[in-house]
Amino acid sequence: LPHLLHGERATARKGLTSDVPVAWDGDGIEFIDQRALPREFVVLKARNVDDVVDAIATLGVRGAPAIGVFGAYGCALAAQQLGGTELERAFARIREARPTAVNLAWAVDRVRARADGDYLTEARTIHDEQVEMDRLLGESAIELFPSTGNVLTHCNTGPLATAGGGTALGAIVAAYRSGKSIAVFACETRPLLQGARLTMYELGQAGVPATLIVDSAAAITMRRKDIQLVIVGADRIARNGDVANKIGTYTHAIAAAYHGIPFYVAAPRSTFDFSLESGDAIPIEERRPEEVRIAEGDAVYNPAFDVTPGRLVTAFITEYGIIRPPYFESIPDLETRPNFLAAKRH
Amino acid sequence: LPHLLHGERATARKGLTSDVPVAWDGDGIEFIDQRALPREFVVLKARNVDDVVDAIATLGVRGAPAIGVFGAYGCALAAQQLGGTELERAFARIREARPTAVNLAWAVDRVRARADGDYLTEARTIHDEQVEMDRLLGESAIELFPSTGNVLTHCNTGPLATAGGGTALGAIVAAYRSGKSIAVFACETRPLLQGARLTMYELGQAGVPATLIVDSAAAITMRRKDIQLVIVGADRIARNGDVANKIGTYTHAIAAAYHGIPFYVAAPRSTFDFSLESGDAIPIEERRPEEVRIAEGDAVYNPAFDVTPGRLVTAFITEYGIIRPPYFESIPDLETRPNFLAAKRH
Repeated sequence: LPHLLHGERATARKGLTSDVPVAWDGDGIEFIDQRALPREFVVLKARNVDDVVDAIATLGVRGAPAIGVFGAYGCALAAQQLGGTELERAFARIREARPTAVNLAWAVDRVRARADGDYLTEARTIHDEQVEMDRLLGESAIELFPSTGNVLTHCNTGPLATAGGGTALGAIVAAYRSGKSIAVFACETRPLLQGARLTMYELGQAGVPATLIVDSAAAITMRRKDIQLVIVGADRIARNGDVANKIGTYTHAIAAAYHGIPFYVAAPRSTFDFSLESGDAIPIEERRPEEVRIAEGDAVYNPAFDVTPGRLVTAFITEYGIIRPPYFESIPDLETRPNFLAAKRH
Repeated sequence: LPHLLHGERATARKGLTSDVPVAWDGDGIEFIDQRALPREFVVLKARNVDDVVDAIATLGVRGAPAIGVFGAYGCALAAQQLGGTELERAFARIREARPTAVNLAWAVDRVRARADGDYLTEARTIHDEQVEMDRLLGESAIELFPSTGNVLTHCNTGPLATAGGGTALGAIVAAYRSGKSIAVFACETRPLLQGARLTMYELGQAGVPATLIVDSAAAITMRRKDIQLVIVGADRIARNGDVANKIGTYTHAIAAAYHGIPFYVAAPRSTFDFSLESGDAIPIEERRPEEVRIAEGDAVYNPAFDVTPGRLVTAFITEYGIIRPPYFESIPDLETRPNFLAAKRH
């Protein structure tokens, strides 16, 4: 297993649970190795920049917000051990460990910009803000859940993905902990199976009843299994409510509309791209054919995500509350709200 | 590999191509081993009843019509080697090699009922009829295909599945061979990946351009890849046009309707259950959780098929031509047509 090659198995892992998959511990960063889940619960400790870059690049830590938090701590770790041009090089290496993860570059830049050089405090602030955002988002969501019934979700949007409580999965867990008697149908999420591997694990940890289905069973599940709502996360949201998210989201949104089931997207304000008029402009990233094909040489179309039209989204769940249609009014309004997290910092 | 344990690798396999996956050869039955595809093209020869039962039970031969043809030849093979109660026991063993395959029991009963005991002739007739049905079905379908464009299909419905030309896949190949410039997007078909393993292989053999996608990419593919029609097979069709078919069919039908894309079901008349008023009465067979889950103990809902409402089906393609709505008229009408295959036999 690759997790044995880099980092070190942590023996004492005080406070590190599946709710807190990333934690600073004085001279390194402990993290839950997502490559080993669900077969094994392994906590590793990144002790230097090589460990940090490796964990990010090989998906030991994945999920855009979680990578941001981990990368921020990585910068603090680098600053303990390096200086001058070596430190600048370390910042650059961490920043580029996964080029497409927007949160990572943002977090590294924010830490580096800290005027007094107290990088650890900045990293802790980024982490605290993430936890707070996820908590508020989860609280906003509770009212949308029925007191009893089933919900359907796709991919992984829990603590492992954000290093906080999670977005869509955080909302489900918040609703469950508020006393609602809900059970989850989790789509396995081909080709990389984040639902089967990580979401089922996290729901088990949280004690929420969960049942795994193949992605294409979503429609019959909606019809026969009393699904009350569908809830997913997002990678990027346009000004008109169009949502780029993990491949399969669009299919589920269409099936939810057909069955008259509410379809919710849980995402912090930072996921909204207010400069983007619609989802039409979002390029569909394609990944390697090897993720899907069995016979070598077979042609594969392997889009990493799809774009769901805003008209199929019942509402967005954010740390600022529920955002409802018409989105051409409510999403620009969201942009104008004062940043209470920044306000807290001062 | 299990295919090395039973049967024998055939050296001479005259005439046995992927268009003819099952063939009688005098003292045994040659067949393409579907367990080895697509990694290896292996032809095995079943030399006795044990080989026949093993090939059916372990999916060396799969697809309801193909199993029927293979089982019929199996009875002829048994009759060469056995007599009396031994032969009766062999018939029973073959008949029960896969209890849920309706065609198998039907074919064994038909061979056994042959008054003059010429079982081989009866098996050949069953096979010939299957080939003829598939050919006529494919011919019916050609007019529905555009002269150029892409089509989407699900699961495997080609020669391997029927021992003839196939149903939905046979229709695609017939359209392609008639000169239409079409290309196929094939859904991988979780959990057992018949699309990725068998459909991609068969399209490659037939020379039809094919691209593999994960099942949940169907909607974005319909939106972005110029899909002109969706075509699938069926396990059972009710009097109102409701269709039981491989899990995922219902999801694709909803997405096709959302995108205004025609959704066709290709199936011979024998797939219509004229005694069934609607699909509501069809029980949803659930298969083993091990086909889907990664972590032991995880709960799984693993329906083997789903039911698509007749109102989502643009038309049925049969050996009697195209059956269009309103189905409460056209399907009962289909029931009354004279059986031209039986007529040919006399």
